[in-house]
Amino acid sequence: MFYIINILGTIAFAISGVLIAFEKRMDAFGILIIAFVTAVGGGTLRDVLIGSTPVFWMIDISYAYVIILSTIFAIIFRKRLNYLRKSLFLFDTIGIGLYTLIGIEKGLQEGLHPLICVALGTMTASFGGVIRDILCNEIPIIFRRETIYATTCILGGFVYFLLDNFKVDNTIVYVVSGAVIIVTRLLAVKFKISLPNIYKTEF
Amino acid sequence: MFYIINILGTIAFAISGVLIAFEKRMDAFGILIIAFVTAVGGGTLRDVLIGSTPVFWMIDISYAYVIILSTIFAIIFRKRLNYLRKSLFLFDTIGIGLYTLIGIEKGLQEGLHPLICVALGTMTASFGGVIRDILCNEIPIIFRRETIYATTCILGGFVYFLLDNFKVDNTIVYVVSGAVIIVTRLLAVKFKISLPNIYKTEF
Amino acid sequence: MFYIINILGTIAFAISGVLIAFEKRMDAFGILIIAFVTAVGGGTLRDVLIGSTPVFWMIDISYAYVIILSTIFAIIFRKRLNYLRKSLFLFDTIGIGLYTLIGIEKGLQEGLHPLICVALGTMTASFGGVIRDILCNEIPIIFRRETIYATTCILGGFVYFLLDNFKVDNTIVYVVSGAVIIVTRLLAVKFKISLPNIYKTEF
Repeated sequence: MFYIINILGTIAFAISGVLIAFEKRMDAFGILIIAFVTAVGGGTLRDVLIGSTPVFWMIDISYAYVIILSTIFAIIFRKRLNYLRKSLFLFDTIGIGLYTLIGIEKGLQEGLHPLICVALGTMTASFGGVIRDILCNEIPIIFRRETIYATTCILGGFVYFLLDNFKVDNTIVYVVSGAVIIVTRLLAVKFKISLPNIYKTEF
Repeated sequence: MFYIINILGTIAFAISGVLIAFEKRMDAFGILIIAFVTAVGGGTLRDVLIGSTPVFWMIDISYAYVIILSTIFAIIFRKRLNYLRKSLFLFDTIGIGLYTLIGIEKGLQEGLHPLICVALGTMTASFGGVIRDILCNEIPIIFRRETIYATTCILGGFVYFLLDNFKVDNTIVYVVSGAVIIVTRLLAVKFKISLPNIYKTEF
Repeated sequence: MFYIINILGTIAFAISGVLIAFEKRMDAFGILIIAFVTAVGGGTLRDVLIGSTPVFWMIDISYAYVIILSTIFAIIFRKRLNYLRKSLFLFDTIGIGLYTLIGIEKGLQEGLHPLICVALGTMTASFGGVIRDILCNEIPIIFRRETIYATTCILGGFVYFLLDNFKVDNTIVYVVSGAVIIVTRLLAVKFKISLPNIYKTEF
């Protein structure tokens, strides 16, 4: 179950990378690298910062296969990917929830402070997109628009440690905090909820 | 004493990051990340390259608190930060001196060559700004203008090893080489001293 | 022999970095950093991802000396570098072949999957240029034009493991797979062979 969600998330992240590489008119090699970076970049940065090396996708080869196949699929069917848009968005959102939890868990294994664990979870879920945007020569999108992408990860992380604090059963902690991330994001996108624009706020 | 300087330096670096994120009209999340990267990016790169992981700010949680509070402060009082400009510049300069020494010390602990230690010191003091500029989609400012920002770190590093070579007492080595960095920078900014422009130099 | 090739490759990579830093009108410090990153950036990323730290150029100080001297040489003789263009291209191509093999070897030492080893070889040979282009605020050139730069490394990597699979003698494996990379690149540049443009291909 866990494994299938992980693969679906990786596919959705990789294909979202391919779509942005298309816009930049990259060649086949560039598209593959952007797909890779989008899918595993956040977790790679996490592993490097905590010193968990070789990084995860070098040890479990299935990530490489999933990303390569997704990229080939997306290149061949690029004119018909529009039909998959909704499924991809759903996988992507579920992926964000799962990636956040994986990042938090890795931080806990290293005995790090809860605040750092939440940062690691957010990093795992959202910094693949940051590295992708840098490689595409853009200011990272999650730093610019008042989307609540990273905010949902931070929120889910706090719910995780809140429940954990009350000695709630582990499975419940995962399901609830993961659901918070997924549901918050779905609602935010549906109702166009965004962070307050600090440039229009008076203090 | 050492600890207080370190915190003042972190505050100054973080706020300088916030100011640049403002110019780029980033959202709250982007501003926080840029503050973080400016303050701890150089030391993080150093720790990753020498393999001192988890990186320093994951182990000592006070960095995260200082940066988060500085960012909130800078966002709220953004229209009045101008009054603090001189203090911030001073903290920033002292921070550069201290960060350089910390980088050199870390290199020595790993038993690395003096030249590499000087590189690590320079990296600690100046590569937070490099990563910040990349995230802001600019060519790093210290690569472009003939400022002597990084040069002061390199100079201070050489003074460090020169004194160390003559078996000078450790405390004196720190104070003198730190002072060289701070004084050189203050003088360079005051008298607008810069590196020779190689494009106008004939060989 | 091996050592001389490595140094020639490092010189060629460093000078190619200097030339691009010139175009961006960087100052002396920026030029040195770009030379450094172009020459050792790929291997540094490889070492960080597999956890081989401190990274290679911190342990073997000769890289730093070679890069610093090459940079000074290139700055002084910048108007006459054109005469060296052909030699530099040759050293660069030989360097790519060698760097790919070094990356593969490092991956094997860590007991990683052949596919990951090929990725590490390609990374060693080509990601210095990627980091250089990011620091210069460009979309990495090997992601854009249908050059077969990275493709030759991947091809050489597959030849390596193909021969290795048939229990061919180690020296022969090195020479043949290295030669495949070098010859393919020379031919591709001479006859202007490039990857198919996926945007003009119908599926």
